[in-house]
Amino acid sequence: MDHTFAVIMAGGSGTRLWPVSRQKHPKHILPLLGERTLFQGTVDRLDGLLSPDHILVVTAAGQARILKKQAPMIPASNFLVEPEPRGTAAVVGLAGMVLRDRDPEAVMLVLPSDHFIRNRDLFQLVMRSAVEIARKDYLVTLGITPTFPATGYGYIQRGKPLLEEAAYPAYRVRKFKEKPTTAQARSMLSDGDHSWNSGMFIWRADRILEEFAHQLPELKRALERIGSAWGTVHQKAVFESVWPGLKTVTIDYGIMEHAERVVVLPAGGLEWSDVGSWDSLFDVLIPDVDGNVVVNSHFMSLDTHNSLVYGGQEKLIVTIGVDDLIIIDTQDAMLVCRKDQAQQVRQVISKLRNSDRNHYL
Amino acid sequence: MDHTFAVIMAGGSGTRLWPVSRQKHPKHILPLLGERTLFQGTVDRLDGLLSPDHILVVTAAGQARILKKQAPMIPASNFLVEPEPRGTAAVVGLAGMVLRDRDPEAVMLVLPSDHFIRNRDLFQLVMRSAVEIARKDYLVTLGITPTFPATGYGYIQRGKPLLEEAAYPAYRVRKFKEKPTTAQARSMLSDGDHSWNSGMFIWRADRILEEFAHQLPELKRALERIGSAWGTVHQKAVFESVWPGLKTVTIDYGIMEHAERVVVLPAGGLEWSDVGSWDSLFDVLIPDVDGNVVVNSHFMSLDTHNSLVYGGQEKLIVTIGVDDLIIIDTQDAMLVCRKDQAQQVRQVISKLRNSDRNHYL
Repeated sequence: MDHTFAVIMAGGSGTRLWPVSRQKHPKHILPLLGERTLFQGTVDRLDGLLSPDHILVVTAAGQARILKKQAPMIPASNFLVEPEPRGTAAVVGLAGMVLRDRDPEAVMLVLPSDHFIRNRDLFQLVMRSAVEIARKDYLVTLGITPTFPATGYGYIQRGKPLLEEAAYPAYRVRKFKEKPTTAQARSMLSDGDHSWNSGMFIWRADRILEEFAHQLPELKRALERIGSAWGTVHQKAVFESVWPGLKTVTIDYGIMEHAERVVVLPAGGLEWSDVGSWDSLFDVLIPDVDGNVVVNSHFMSLDTHNSLVYGGQEKLIVTIGVDDLIIIDTQDAMLVCRKDQAQQVRQVISKLRNSDRNHYL
Repeated sequence: MDHTFAVIMAGGSGTRLWPVSRQKHPKHILPLLGERTLFQGTVDRLDGLLSPDHILVVTAAGQARILKKQAPMIPASNFLVEPEPRGTAAVVGLAGMVLRDRDPEAVMLVLPSDHFIRNRDLFQLVMRSAVEIARKDYLVTLGITPTFPATGYGYIQRGKPLLEEAAYPAYRVRKFKEKPTTAQARSMLSDGDHSWNSGMFIWRADRILEEFAHQLPELKRALERIGSAWGTVHQKAVFESVWPGLKTVTIDYGIMEHAERVVVLPAGGLEWSDVGSWDSLFDVLIPDVDGNVVVNSHFMSLDTHNSLVYGGQEKLIVTIGVDDLIIIDTQDAMLVCRKDQAQQVRQVISKLRNSDRNHYL
């Protein structure tokens, strides 16, 4: 895996796992699943695939210090700190420029920092195949084989198989699709030719920059100004003056939907989750005999099933006669939610935002 | 209401409202319903009926200080502190002896300290009638007209109406009955001649002592030894040496079941509860438009109905898609329980007692 680099996107600020994740404590920096944080899990997952000095972390000012502490094996100079959030296209473009200058043959794995993948061996096998394909100037996206008609993800429809040999089957992408309705999701699931869009991408740095030149030329030029100052005494000044003026756009919308030579690797069996809500966290954790998942809690139950109980430290949580419930306790806020309504946490967030209780965010 | 005294029994140590009530913080000393504690409510309820210096409080060593603080209008010498718990018969006997010595005409209202009664005016009317009847050497019990086939209370079956005139209808007691099965409770409810045993009694002090002499002569003699030292320099020494040797028995079982001239006043409309479990507390509180009762909490809900939410201080409790649930949060322990299973808290208590988690009791 010479010339291979990872770019971990770790600048997010979601509150969908409220009340554990907060504006100032987004989910990737929290030990949601035990000892290690989701960010650390993302780094751990690369162990054996590439060396820590080949990992770039793009993050926000407020998070850089804690992420460096969580991954001390990554050189401090590999942390790129966005002056402010400008969407994933700008992040990928900047990282591409930095990596191409460092290694003209660079292949980059673009990885979110807040996903969960249980099956690390399979992940590495897929990544090795993806890198092989990416070397041939393809833009590779990692698809996740759907296990239910999810409406919370974008989808990727595959076309013909790629003729080039690879350790893992790959397909031309026919179409990227936005988050569907339930009916559309059902139909895509039964068609069998759709994957969830995981937000993981693999490509050569020079190849993606070529695509930027075609599709987002203005953004590309602005990034080149930053790139030409990179590593000089002007780096900080130019970065901080140019970056805030960049167009905010996602890599999916700004590049992928209309790119050439786009390929999908449909991966089943990764046991992947974007951990986008409490019920999706529940789905990837291993339940006890009653179907309950208990994290960080002293727990005692009578007649309790299929519930997620998440607490802290020395507190005892007792449940009686409860099914399919999510119970999340923190120091200053608690959530009790029916599992099939976990998406409604967003509504709670927006009610809090528009109230004098926004200190709970 | 000359010659009338109240004896408030405030030595209990229940944990049925766990995790709010604890071994060291039994429910009558807690502000369960807002500002005032159940004990204070019991005292308040006597306001206008008798003066504070006519209120005796029988309690345990660990509780005396806080109860005196909660009812500063009651003279400190009116607090009788049991060296250790010996059941309600001993308490009633001792109080009877102390009151008879103070006033040979004394009538005593024996009142639990941990009940809730919303309708204070009706309570006072019933008590006045009961005192009238008690003056004629009857042992009066206050019955509660059942509103559902409860299995958690003892029952009192009434016989013929009492011929003596009284402001409130009174009946001879036919039979005291232990806690019934559901089928027995249903049948008693439909018979219409049963009341719940409230544990509230009204009688002359000399009359109940006469009954002690018949039915519990040994206990009576031991109490007389304490009584004869009462008010002398030997009071403390005799009390503490004799009391622990007393037979532990309830007034219901030891006296009432076989007493002469026992009368019941069946009271409906008091809006009474023994607050013996979280669901019974829920039943006496006034719900909001969604049927929820929220105590001491910052609360936000989506699609939540008929639930009890009980928290503390600045903590925010959020519920989504939840019905008929009891949610009780304290500093070190939390309970989430289906409302119709609130009785199971006892099982939790006994599991805790038999584990290394008994510091949560």
